[in-house]
Amino acid sequence: MPVDPLRACVVGVDYGTLSGRAVVVRVADGAEIGSAVHDYRHAVLTESLPDGTPLGHDWALQVPSDYVDVLKHAVPAALAAAGIDPADVIGVGTDFTACTMVPALADGTPLCELPQWSSRPHAYVKLWKHHAAQPQADRINDLAAKRGESWLPRYGGLISSEWEFAKGLQLLEEDPEAYAATARWVEAADWIVWQLTGSYVRNACTAGYKGIRQDGKYPSPEFLAELNPEFRDFVADKLEQPIGQLGTAAGTLSAQASDWTGLPEGIAVAVGNVDAHVTSAAAAALDPGQMVAIMGTSTCHVMNGDELREVPGMCGAVDGGIVAGLWGYEAGQSGVGDIFGHYVANLGAEWTHERLTELASRQRPGEHGLIALDWHNGNRSVLVDVELSGLLVGETLATKPADIYRALIEATAFGTRKIVETFGTAGVPVREFIAAGGLLKNGLLMQIYADVLNMPLSVIGSEQGPALGSAIHAAAAAGAYPDVRAAAAAMGRVERAVYRPDPAAAAIYDELYAEYSVLHDYFGRGANPVMRKLRAIQRKVTA
Amino acid sequence: MPVDPLRACVVGVDYGTLSGRAVVVRVADGAEIGSAVHDYRHAVLTESLPDGTPLGHDWALQVPSDYVDVLKHAVPAALAAAGIDPADVIGVGTDFTACTMVPALADGTPLCELPQWSSRPHAYVKLWKHHAAQPQADRINDLAAKRGESWLPRYGGLISSEWEFAKGLQLLEEDPEAYAATARWVEAADWIVWQLTGSYVRNACTAGYKGIRQDGKYPSPEFLAELNPEFRDFVADKLEQPIGQLGTAAGTLSAQASDWTGLPEGIAVAVGNVDAHVTSAAAAALDPGQMVAIMGTSTCHVMNGDELREVPGMCGAVDGGIVAGLWGYEAGQSGVGDIFGHYVANLGAEWTHERLTELASRQRPGEHGLIALDWHNGNRSVLVDVELSGLLVGETLATKPADIYRALIEATAFGTRKIVETFGTAGVPVREFIAAGGLLKNGLLMQIYADVLNMPLSVIGSEQGPALGSAIHAAAAAGAYPDVRAAAAAMGRVERAVYRPDPAAAAIYDELYAEYSVLHDYFGRGANPVMRKLRAIQRKVTA
Repeated sequence: MPVDPLRACVVGVDYGTLSGRAVVVRVADGAEIGSAVHDYRHAVLTESLPDGTPLGHDWALQVPSDYVDVLKHAVPAALAAAGIDPADVIGVGTDFTACTMVPALADGTPLCELPQWSSRPHAYVKLWKHHAAQPQADRINDLAAKRGESWLPRYGGLISSEWEFAKGLQLLEEDPEAYAATARWVEAADWIVWQLTGSYVRNACTAGYKGIRQDGKYPSPEFLAELNPEFRDFVADKLEQPIGQLGTAAGTLSAQASDWTGLPEGIAVAVGNVDAHVTSAAAAALDPGQMVAIMGTSTCHVMNGDELREVPGMCGAVDGGIVAGLWGYEAGQSGVGDIFGHYVANLGAEWTHERLTELASRQRPGEHGLIALDWHNGNRSVLVDVELSGLLVGETLATKPADIYRALIEATAFGTRKIVETFGTAGVPVREFIAAGGLLKNGLLMQIYADVLNMPLSVIGSEQGPALGSAIHAAAAAGAYPDVRAAAAAMGRVERAVYRPDPAAAAIYDELYAEYSVLHDYFGRGANPVMRKLRAIQRKVTA
Repeated sequence: MPVDPLRACVVGVDYGTLSGRAVVVRVADGAEIGSAVHDYRHAVLTESLPDGTPLGHDWALQVPSDYVDVLKHAVPAALAAAGIDPADVIGVGTDFTACTMVPALADGTPLCELPQWSSRPHAYVKLWKHHAAQPQADRINDLAAKRGESWLPRYGGLISSEWEFAKGLQLLEEDPEAYAATARWVEAADWIVWQLTGSYVRNACTAGYKGIRQDGKYPSPEFLAELNPEFRDFVADKLEQPIGQLGTAAGTLSAQASDWTGLPEGIAVAVGNVDAHVTSAAAAALDPGQMVAIMGTSTCHVMNGDELREVPGMCGAVDGGIVAGLWGYEAGQSGVGDIFGHYVANLGAEWTHERLTELASRQRPGEHGLIALDWHNGNRSVLVDVELSGLLVGETLATKPADIYRALIEATAFGTRKIVETFGTAGVPVREFIAAGGLLKNGLLMQIYADVLNMPLSVIGSEQGPALGSAIHAAAAAGAYPDVRAAAAAMGRVERAVYRPDPAAAAIYDELYAEYSVLHDYFGRGANPVMRKLRAIQRKVTA
């Protein structure tokens, strides 16, 4: 019996860095009628494996069974919270952090779940923020530049240590046995869909952005062999897989996944996707020039464009990378909320985000006399260098914690402006800036961004943007709408110009941004490589 | 009846930034047999006058009656603690912060003690760290360079906003009435001696280092008139005064001062002196090439040399500025312990110097991946620029408070090395580094200094260096020894090579110091004037 269109629902599941969130959404209008969150039991492994095996510097791993636990717990809880009949659910969609990589057997079993591999760090999931593959990324970039690989400019001239090839090469070179045992090197975005449907479909988004798949091809065996002879067949052996377009069905829900989730067996399961990219649909912001910034621990910027342009230092331009038919552009700031959180965590217990925000909000721009670089977690755009680090200039004996807190917020806003300007210079102008993500709740931060960008800020109309976006993709995959853009128009939500720039503040921020830019180029473009040197010394003395 | 030489004592009184300390010292061997401290009731005025009158940015004032209170309380308490007969005291000596300036009537009455002036900020004592006269200092430096004034190279090519002329010009230009009412512009070092003896003698040390007195002359009326026509007669009207050589008697103790202190009327009162300079005597370190570093909230470096050399960016070279017959060299770091204290104060209650030091001491050099510039209170040597500010490079999301604390300690050690190397390059080699001051108690800091300097560190054998040094000067002034060097040899104390450099640590610090030097020159020598610009923006928006 077909589902009544007025009652039809979809489920979106958003896999974040620390937890997964399921939301039940009405297909007709995008109303969010129930949601639940499940925290990953193992969170992020940075110091050691669950059995105590120590990890190296800059490692960040996860345990894939934590992802399945989200299906088992958050989805039923969301259905219960929604109070709907599960039979009314016509599709499920997912989104994931990226690039997060699962080493798996041919049947999808994660290597780390086999007892003989459970003490081997390389058998675990390498989370997006695993940054230990930088030497490999450096070699990939050097060689690609030397050989003039045609795909390199699509990624702003540099690929990231976070992506599939750098992490894969690290796997090969540091644990050849684990590499040999890895039949499939799978994006977690696709691995979770594999768990839902029982079959492996590779999504067009991460294949393009993280897998260096351009014009239907991956980097060549010759290129890979020049990096390392053993790496020659990496693509053919472990990566190549049929591509699924975003918003189509990867398959249908398996009986096992139906048991886990309480959802009907056989409903549509959307092709895997990435948290940031699905949020564009949730914000109904899929037109060219609409930049969606998903602002949380880090920030991801996604925007469609009519044409392919080479934007220096961006994360990637991918045909159909956000929606079919347009070029999807992605940029990012690898530390935003994480930087504020780190600062607060290092202060004593009497300091909170709320108190610091309140004190910082009493200041005028420029009053604290500080300027910071927002590279505490490296720079993803436009410098693409995880070896960069933070900078604070201007501290005096009169500087207060709220001064530094405000300067850090401003630094991340300057970083965003650097990205927006770089797009504009490259011929991909940003016409509207739409903010999404957890930092929306900080009104001071949003006003600072409006003042620094000197643009009105639109705001997504959902607090669960990625999960809503995944649900929109599920609705399209289930055939409730002809495509993702139509589904987003009906189900997405945005409020226009919620924060408007103050001209006086914008003028001061123009002055400070000029200083930021000088420091950005001095420390970021090689004039003074001190940040890289400090890391090299650190590695040497701790080796 | 003459005092028994074996029982003869002297009293040294050390005037610091927040308190005054009196110590009773045996003349025969320098034994410290009693001491007492008295806190200044008004401490440092930075926000407002006692009556609530607000102060501007970078102001730092004091109340001169607080100095007299030290005579009234600390001296009798020290005598009581020593348990001696006051009749055994044969002399008293003092030392003071510098350049700390008292605007006074012709009889020495401080302007601020007159009711009609009590609400006028310019009627109060400008403490050494009053930094609001930088615009005047800039003009003095520019004009002196333009005119090729012969005294300028004696001060490393730049005079400081902390000194007599910059502060005096600020007084004239911001409060001409207070300037007109100021008959005498008196170093606090001399003002306190004036209170003890009833007559005004100007000491050779501050006259030379802070008063730009070189070869018996001050800056000319023509020079001063070019700064401001009203400033032409500043020297003749308010500054010129007979000079007393260090370690001689300025006079004898007055009846009134005898009443305050409980000391015998008529005993010798040594010529005024400066805390850092008298400490050289306390450490028995008056030979050429012996650099004494008085390490506290700030650090002052003093050293004698046989000859006059022009050392770029030093605070001054003064004939007889430390002891008669040698050239006294002075350099300084305007923020040291203050920087650590500021950092700890901002962290919150659960963090202490002890805890941070303990955590920092577990690290190897280079392990934290940070480098800092130690300019939170400006740079006194070798850049002589109070508009400079702090810098921290290398912070990541893994950085802990103890990492930053250690980096700040290291930054001050690098600043010291910059000074030591600059002396060496200028032909005034540092042959021994003798540490004194409150930071001696931090063994980690001392070891870091030894490693960074790659020199053994000697340590003063007294916890009350300046007060002991003043007492040594009192003994010389009273005639118990032929001169200060003889008195210091008998009464001063030093332990040799208490901290020895670790070769491995020194090698890493060589690498880090190279990075420090690049940052030092980039931010400090004009390549990137961002620190000055940030202060200018700050002044503009808070005006």
